[in-house]
Amino acid sequence: MERKILLTECPDAKGLISSITNICAKHQLNIIKNNEFVDNDANRFFMRTVLEGYFNDQTLLADLDGALPTGSTRRLESAGRKRIVIMVTKEAHCLGDLLMKAVYGDMDVEIAAVVGNYDSLRNLTEKFDIPFHHISHVDLSREEHEQQVIEVVQQYQPDYVVLAKYMRILTPAFVEAFNNKILNIHHSFLPAFIGAKPYKQAYDRGVKIIGATAHFVNNDLDEGPIVEQHVIHVDHTYSAEEMAKAGRDVEKAVLSKALQQVLDEKVFVYGNRTVVFR
Amino acid sequence: MERKILLTECPDAKGLISSITNICAKHQLNIIKNNEFVDNDANRFFMRTVLEGYFNDQTLLADLDGALPTGSTRRLESAGRKRIVIMVTKEAHCLGDLLMKAVYGDMDVEIAAVVGNYDSLRNLTEKFDIPFHHISHVDLSREEHEQQVIEVVQQYQPDYVVLAKYMRILTPAFVEAFNNKILNIHHSFLPAFIGAKPYKQAYDRGVKIIGATAHFVNNDLDEGPIVEQHVIHVDHTYSAEEMAKAGRDVEKAVLSKALQQVLDEKVFVYGNRTVVFR
Amino acid sequence: MERKILLTECPDAKGLISSITNICAKHQLNIIKNNEFVDNDANRFFMRTVLEGYFNDQTLLADLDGALPTGSTRRLESAGRKRIVIMVTKEAHCLGDLLMKAVYGDMDVEIAAVVGNYDSLRNLTEKFDIPFHHISHVDLSREEHEQQVIEVVQQYQPDYVVLAKYMRILTPAFVEAFNNKILNIHHSFLPAFIGAKPYKQAYDRGVKIIGATAHFVNNDLDEGPIVEQHVIHVDHTYSAEEMAKAGRDVEKAVLSKALQQVLDEKVFVYGNRTVVFR
Amino acid sequence: MERKILLTECPDAKGLISSITNICAKHQLNIIKNNEFVDNDANRFFMRTVLEGYFNDQTLLADLDGALPTGSTRRLESAGRKRIVIMVTKEAHCLGDLLMKAVYGDMDVEIAAVVGNYDSLRNLTEKFDIPFHHISHVDLSREEHEQQVIEVVQQYQPDYVVLAKYMRILTPAFVEAFNNKILNIHHSFLPAFIGAKPYKQAYDRGVKIIGATAHFVNNDLDEGPIVEQHVIHVDHTYSAEEMAKAGRDVEKAVLSKALQQVLDEKVFVYGNRTVVFR
Repeated sequence: MERKILLTECPDAKGLISSITNICAKHQLNIIKNNEFVDNDANRFFMRTVLEGYFNDQTLLADLDGALPTGSTRRLESAGRKRIVIMVTKEAHCLGDLLMKAVYGDMDVEIAAVVGNYDSLRNLTEKFDIPFHHISHVDLSREEHEQQVIEVVQQYQPDYVVLAKYMRILTPAFVEAFNNKILNIHHSFLPAFIGAKPYKQAYDRGVKIIGATAHFVNNDLDEGPIVEQHVIHVDHTYSAEEMAKAGRDVEKAVLSKALQQVLDEKVFVYGNRTVVFR
Repeated sequence: MERKILLTECPDAKGLISSITNICAKHQLNIIKNNEFVDNDANRFFMRTVLEGYFNDQTLLADLDGALPTGSTRRLESAGRKRIVIMVTKEAHCLGDLLMKAVYGDMDVEIAAVVGNYDSLRNLTEKFDIPFHHISHVDLSREEHEQQVIEVVQQYQPDYVVLAKYMRILTPAFVEAFNNKILNIHHSFLPAFIGAKPYKQAYDRGVKIIGATAHFVNNDLDEGPIVEQHVIHVDHTYSAEEMAKAGRDVEKAVLSKALQQVLDEKVFVYGNRTVVFR
Repeated sequence: MERKILLTECPDAKGLISSITNICAKHQLNIIKNNEFVDNDANRFFMRTVLEGYFNDQTLLADLDGALPTGSTRRLESAGRKRIVIMVTKEAHCLGDLLMKAVYGDMDVEIAAVVGNYDSLRNLTEKFDIPFHHISHVDLSREEHEQQVIEVVQQYQPDYVVLAKYMRILTPAFVEAFNNKILNIHHSFLPAFIGAKPYKQAYDRGVKIIGATAHFVNNDLDEGPIVEQHVIHVDHTYSAEEMAKAGRDVEKAVLSKALQQVLDEKVFVYGNRTVVFR
Repeated sequence: MERKILLTECPDAKGLISSITNICAKHQLNIIKNNEFVDNDANRFFMRTVLEGYFNDQTLLADLDGALPTGSTRRLESAGRKRIVIMVTKEAHCLGDLLMKAVYGDMDVEIAAVVGNYDSLRNLTEKFDIPFHHISHVDLSREEHEQQVIEVVQQYQPDYVVLAKYMRILTPAFVEAFNNKILNIHHSFLPAFIGAKPYKQAYDRGVKIIGATAHFVNNDLDEGPIVEQHVIHVDHTYSAEEMAKAGRDVEKAVLSKALQQVLDEKVFVYGNRTVVFR
């Protein structure tokens, strides 16, 4: 007996829930958990169904395709452990948090490798017996550098790529290579403070909250679909550096919460929006 | 065409979602929104289904009764405006917030009447053209007083009774009269600081957070099923009085959020727990 | 015996605290509470001193002027009740919250009058026996309209002007007339979603938090010095309208918290920043 | 030139700030930052003064003793890096977070050693080149075990002892040995869920928030003076295990924030309360 997750997205229509659940019943699959949402503005239907039983993937998907309206997408995902590659620059806190969680059982994920454009985090990564690839961007064009990164990442065939404070902007080619598979942590509550040095921007603006945003990466800088955001309160006594330090705890909490939801296949991405089921 | 909400609670079993949704489909009812949850520890299934169409309540419920396992309960609730009676003592903030929301469109509810064991809030209530009943407890036994309150409240046939800082403990007879229909706001983050003067208790304990809890009332003091909780941070500069003042904004926000969920029929109560669907 | 608040702002220098407190001691004034902050980037010193005793304001301020460096400002404010005028458009929630707090003792403030560019909130205001002035902007130039508003507001000589969802942009002349005395509530976590329809903007961007910002008004739209900000979490189930509804509770909580701090003379404004002492 | 922190606590009296700051001025010490608080209920005065200059500790303290009322305490603390010993049982997350922060510069602290009553966390500790002492409690009386722990801890002469999920109750002898120097993280928002298995207790109670509390340890179980608390929202979909997992991120954030404040000498402890200056 296996457990899989069926993710259905389609134009809204009458009777979708009963159609889909009937097909599951016909396949003798037990529904462990079901979440449903209709975006009325977009007229789109989303359903996440955790199924248990003996799967014949091909006939199940064929049956669904027969029942769903034109313009539907459906995926059948394993409920098991996923594999990720983490990309970093120099900051250790998000990487360290993910390593700790993966190794000590707080997150069921395989960190296949860490790729850095500096060598700074090799030591931390290797402490946890995970391969570290230093791919320097120095003296390379953006395209050349990314091509090397893509090759290394692809050899691990990750389910998701996690940018854990990777401080370089990705090209459309990279985004294309891992479409809807790249999760980034941005160190501000987007859409405020897009771009570089958000804590400096926040300090200069005199804000009383700082925050972090985990989002999927598309081709707009810091503008992808948001998965999770959180803020903390600051006051006039915080320098830009103290904001950055306090913000790091938010960044790692937001990234790891978002990643857990992504690994659990609870997230649908459509346009600039996400559905994140509980 | 009408909109109604079907609330199903039963022992967990295979095929419940498809059974229920099939019956809805057979009745030509469109599912606008569906939420489902299984409490695996309790082996209980909960589903909230917003339906649209032409209802034949009796045959629909009969069909459901035929399909659901023994030990099921199901309710078909109107999706329309509900009627409440509010009970108060002397504090104005929760009552004022509900009056403002009801009158200015932030909450779709009919406040049928306000009952106070003091006359202090008559003036506020009547500003909003809502009847106020002063039922003094002075010189009455608890039972005598409550009997008068029950009679007045019952004449309004409220869907829910809201204790908006009603500072008297209810007897089992009262709780029985409005079983699972009484929503209370307690001015602490339960289960901390049960009982009287929670802000004084909080101050004496030197806590760094204060909060509020909205819960259904059962026969244990401040121990009913929790619907909503929230806290705010305080520090050493807060006196017990300043904690109480800061807490009042949390109390009213928590009460009105909980009440909205209750009015929307998003809350299931079972044992000492609630399911609160989004 | 009286209580007053001394607010000192000056270039940072050695010995400021002992100089100032010595002058207070020489005047036989007891320091009830003292807060101090140095902005090292700006090299500015801020101190708020609550004093008790018999005041000779002129000699006290003269003594301070003799002791403080060039470029200092100091104010001696009454610790008593302040007077405000509230400006509104059509939304009731912030006004209602302030009226409730002023009347029922949660905020020690005199609401001298309410001015609206629509007549919609007359009824609410007059329920609480406070004068309401309807000054329509229809058929008037911005300058003409504002001139009428300024005249009405000035006749009440308010300590502060509170924009409780006043949905018109103020001209520099207005800002000048009540310099550093105008507190506004903006319905987003600034600097995100500046300008019109922030909840619609937030919905379109797919954010997972919404918030509110209370700030002093200067001549940049929604860009004045921030006093207080707060956010709440939302998810994909919120429509733009539901975000707006949920946001109203944050707006009123943020505005009233900020106003309390302003009334307590705990806020220093400098450039685009504030110091808000606890 | 040096920087030190003067911490003064005494019965409240007139003129304390000017007395103390005058002595600092007389010693040619510049006040970098000053925080003051009076607990009116307890009639106690607290002041934290960051000083810069050339210190003659003995004469400074003698001058202060001459000026302060009977019943005063004052300490002059180095503003430099402090040394801690961390005590653990089996859970890795708080230890891992502190190790990461100490090694990667987010917290300026020397972790002198880690002591565990199990050997489980030796590997993690030694990854970061910090000595680990396994002192098993098996076959020892509580007093025998603690005596061994005290000896090991004392040889490092720590400024503070941090219980990072040390799951054994300390005896009065241990608390005495490191009086007001032991910081603990408790995995609930105290005073709710004192004692064992707080997440199980929280789950059984059906709460909608879970949290963590960092507090100094005295001889009442989970009842010491609170330094920091925080909560997160949970809902009916969380099992007790999921609450525990979500709670771990709060625990480590609360512990490290509290520890930072303790290391910065911003915390006064008196009775069951703390003053935590910003």
